[in-house]
Amino acid sequence: MVQLGANRYGKAEVRVLRVARGAAPGGGDVIRDWNVSTSLSGDLAATHLTGGNSGVLTTDTQKNTVYAFASRLGAAEPEVLGLELAAHFVRSQPQISRARVAVSEYGWDRLGDGGHSFARNGTLTRFARVVHDAALGPAVLAGLDGLTVLNSTDSEFWGFPKDEYTTLAETSDRILATEVSARWRYRAADIDWAAAYAGARQALLDAFSQTYSYSLQQTLFAMGSRVIEQVPAICEVRLSLPNKHHYLVDLAPAGLANDREVYYPGDRPYGLIEGTVLADDAPSAGPAWD
Amino acid sequence: MVQLGANRYGKAEVRVLRVARGAAPGGGDVIRDWNVSTSLSGDLAATHLTGGNSGVLTTDTQKNTVYAFASRLGAAEPEVLGLELAAHFVRSQPQISRARVAVSEYGWDRLGDGGHSFARNGTLTRFARVVHDAALGPAVLAGLDGLTVLNSTDSEFWGFPKDEYTTLAETSDRILATEVSARWRYRAADIDWAAAYAGARQALLDAFSQTYSYSLQQTLFAMGSRVIEQVPAICEVRLSLPNKHHYLVDLAPAGLANDREVYYPGDRPYGLIEGTVLADDAPSAGPAWD
Amino acid sequence: MVQLGANRYGKAEVRVLRVARGAAPGGGDVIRDWNVSTSLSGDLAATHLTGGNSGVLTTDTQKNTVYAFASRLGAAEPEVLGLELAAHFVRSQPQISRARVAVSEYGWDRLGDGGHSFARNGTLTRFARVVHDAALGPAVLAGLDGLTVLNSTDSEFWGFPKDEYTTLAETSDRILATEVSARWRYRAADIDWAAAYAGARQALLDAFSQTYSYSLQQTLFAMGSRVIEQVPAICEVRLSLPNKHHYLVDLAPAGLANDREVYYPGDRPYGLIEGTVLADDAPSAGPAWD
Amino acid sequence: MVQLGANRYGKAEVRVLRVARGAAPGGGDVIRDWNVSTSLSGDLAATHLTGGNSGVLTTDTQKNTVYAFASRLGAAEPEVLGLELAAHFVRSQPQISRARVAVSEYGWDRLGDGGHSFARNGTLTRFARVVHDAALGPAVLAGLDGLTVLNSTDSEFWGFPKDEYTTLAETSDRILATEVSARWRYRAADIDWAAAYAGARQALLDAFSQTYSYSLQQTLFAMGSRVIEQVPAICEVRLSLPNKHHYLVDLAPAGLANDREVYYPGDRPYGLIEGTVLADDAPSAGPAWD
Repeated sequence: MVQLGANRYGKAEVRVLRVARGAAPGGGDVIRDWNVSTSLSGDLAATHLTGGNSGVLTTDTQKNTVYAFASRLGAAEPEVLGLELAAHFVRSQPQISRARVAVSEYGWDRLGDGGHSFARNGTLTRFARVVHDAALGPAVLAGLDGLTVLNSTDSEFWGFPKDEYTTLAETSDRILATEVSARWRYRAADIDWAAAYAGARQALLDAFSQTYSYSLQQTLFAMGSRVIEQVPAICEVRLSLPNKHHYLVDLAPAGLANDREVYYPGDRPYGLIEGTVLADDAPSAGPAWD
Repeated sequence: MVQLGANRYGKAEVRVLRVARGAAPGGGDVIRDWNVSTSLSGDLAATHLTGGNSGVLTTDTQKNTVYAFASRLGAAEPEVLGLELAAHFVRSQPQISRARVAVSEYGWDRLGDGGHSFARNGTLTRFARVVHDAALGPAVLAGLDGLTVLNSTDSEFWGFPKDEYTTLAETSDRILATEVSARWRYRAADIDWAAAYAGARQALLDAFSQTYSYSLQQTLFAMGSRVIEQVPAICEVRLSLPNKHHYLVDLAPAGLANDREVYYPGDRPYGLIEGTVLADDAPSAGPAWD
Repeated sequence: MVQLGANRYGKAEVRVLRVARGAAPGGGDVIRDWNVSTSLSGDLAATHLTGGNSGVLTTDTQKNTVYAFASRLGAAEPEVLGLELAAHFVRSQPQISRARVAVSEYGWDRLGDGGHSFARNGTLTRFARVVHDAALGPAVLAGLDGLTVLNSTDSEFWGFPKDEYTTLAETSDRILATEVSARWRYRAADIDWAAAYAGARQALLDAFSQTYSYSLQQTLFAMGSRVIEQVPAICEVRLSLPNKHHYLVDLAPAGLANDREVYYPGDRPYGLIEGTVLADDAPSAGPAWD
Repeated sequence: MVQLGANRYGKAEVRVLRVARGAAPGGGDVIRDWNVSTSLSGDLAATHLTGGNSGVLTTDTQKNTVYAFASRLGAAEPEVLGLELAAHFVRSQPQISRARVAVSEYGWDRLGDGGHSFARNGTLTRFARVVHDAALGPAVLAGLDGLTVLNSTDSEFWGFPKDEYTTLAETSDRILATEVSARWRYRAADIDWAAAYAGARQALLDAFSQTYSYSLQQTLFAMGSRVIEQVPAICEVRLSLPNKHHYLVDLAPAGLANDREVYYPGDRPYGLIEGTVLADDAPSAGPAWD
């Protein structure tokens, strides 16, 4: 005999461009460019067991709700969009006990001086995510993806164990590069979201560039620590750092020296370093990461 | 003050083609095409806090170990590769308390009759994953990704709640399509892996094509149940099913009828249905999903 | 001063699923899964110079036209869809002198015995393209993409020039793998399209598996020649063959031999071999490749 | 009987990071991050017909040559790398009559004040390409990819022909967005490459933001014209502009107005506008675009 275990459903990747006409200083437009995903859990056994859908707020309705809230809330911070949407789903649907709303926000820079022209400003995307539990209320995560950084020196790697499969040479000067994916947890749900995001992003950059590194793990811990130290509203940071290897090219066959000048970036395989840094007084996460 | 939380590190996406010369019936070659990722946890505080790497078996060594075990094990089932590698890391490195090895296997069909020609046979990839814990021993997951299936009828969707944001019409005949991502957990570590995989894959296909569906959730539960019923070695199935929406085109402006004939597949957004089905007597998962 | 040069515009990637209800032997459904792109040229100076759009059949209308013709034509061969659409655009819009319609068709296999279940059958996509010129009439290309093939032996590579930058060793036994992208040109516009496609695809596979190869260029020429020999309706073949390198892993540091058993597939860089094979009596291509 | 037609071969996507130690003002490092592809043509019938490789400078050697020239040339402009490499292949290999070298350059911003930290600065990549013909000498193209821009107003679209398939409404205020892919041709091979690139890039941005648009074709022509007017060294511009449609969401069912505030960006299908703008006195292109 079988039974139903944990389950959830929702609408993924609802794309929204919210234009706030005339909201910029000087009268130009402000834009917010979002990719929103919603996911609901609760008393959903019927639809799994018999196809009875009386409790299934459709994913199409979830999509429409995203658009309507984007209309009502204006060019809000993505955390606010998430908080309002997640609370709405739990409060309006008694069978839903937990709602998750994730928002990726794409950044645009202003272009020219007409107030209505913009250029996408990079691969980095801002991230926000709210889990609203019917009993526990909301929990807020934020983060970023696609922040690619590189140090051309000040990185060593040695002192590691050698076994019969080890061929890697120790090095006292290597390139260290990674594409940062970060998630952090807030202590409360009424933060100055824009300032906290900007502070965390800057802390990640500062720690990466200022850490003389003996391992990517050490850099990871420095980055997470700096975020927590710089932004008191944040109590936990989770980082996923692929090691974007840059290998020194052997130019000796061509009669050329290569004193840390010509590298080839490798695609696969890559090291992957994942870790968590917590404030000593971090409260329990509850369902924040669910 | 900050502290280090959960962490892991390893080598991701080590690509291996293992050729077993003359191992096919009739003397042809057998090939296995793998993408292997390893990840280790344990007493790794030093590298995070000070960059002291005496406990860090390098990800480069992990890569070399994958190649060496692929050499020794021959054209083995991917679960066997995972079991041997994960056990090796834990047993040979006292500071490592848990090792994870994931293997994606790409499928190839034989081509012609020379015994050495092959063609990639689809987007589907087979998956296997072993978690070896120093105290608890190994746990084995398997699954598949990229299995895209479609029913052109025998799917209804109605009876769902309507609120002020609902615009979706009820339907008694829609297209149901999804790209199956499945993971299942085995009860033991000495299964006939090839037979279990084939049985689970066939059960997923059978349940999808034979279920008259009132919701994708119902289809999900039917698919998971069928796997557990057909393959007793499997005690838990987790499915992630994106609803690949096919919308009926409105041809009325062109004066044409469209009685379920012309659809356009949408890219984004998409419904995403995720759920777990368990055998009633499923043992505790332990760290299997870690 | 500046002038307008060559230009074109159209709708790219119109996705269509055409279901022919009950059209299969035994009464099941037949499906065609298409990705259609249209592109028009002609007297379009006004829209470029002043934004005057009286000659611009909108790309939205082009999209609607694709749907309408998919409705009318049923589960047709993709070349037929292309021929009818391209002729329509040129004939109905006097300012349009040339129309191009490209169709990629995704393949599905039948699943189960209910007549309405299907599974995507691979990464390979069939391709068809029609250029209809107002003065010259139609020209038809077809082809395929994503056909990944591998020979585990019967491939050598030696005798190449060495200069001061050469480090590659000669080899008398290497793995030869590629992902075939093929385009071929038909002599006429009223071929048995399904048979010609099947014949060309099989000829590519046969030539790849049966050619003892001294270079990927030699294999390319053999593949193109075989198509022309096997399918008289085809007069020209263009092939683009990335060399999917498989490098032998050096296992000597681990004390292991590696007699052509363990390889790692490289991602980048890759060799890229492109070439054309023509029938001696191939007629002029005209605008077929435009 | 069959014959060999046009053909070429080379190494695609050779990734190179060139670090010029201490070359920055103040003593920091300068980096250049390249993706280089080479392609050679000439008397290559033997390898196609018999596998005789005496004329085939291997793609592996081409790769090594890229690294060696990156070493010798330092942190050069990508056009210089292309010119030197293409000339080398033609001059050193008598059987090679034409060499093409394409370079994509990824941009990095400085990070912090240590002189050795960098962050990837966006999705935009700079492009340069040299074709060196043995008889005609070099021709130089440049361009960019991935420049995504958006105007939130000042775009209309109306006055287009209506036929039986037309459903699109005319609009006097729509969002206009595109991802610019541009290629331009230089009149000579000894330009100030960095200045010309910067000038062309700025001209594209200026024309996009300053053009009140009645069609994307009109914007395209304005962008190409501006480049030619602002950078006299450029005689031809080719633009490929996907129309990244933003559709106004219908919020009426939810009782909400939507006066150009909430849009959803569509993925597929998309309009694709392609066109060329030439200086009146543009010299013949010769093999520049080959």
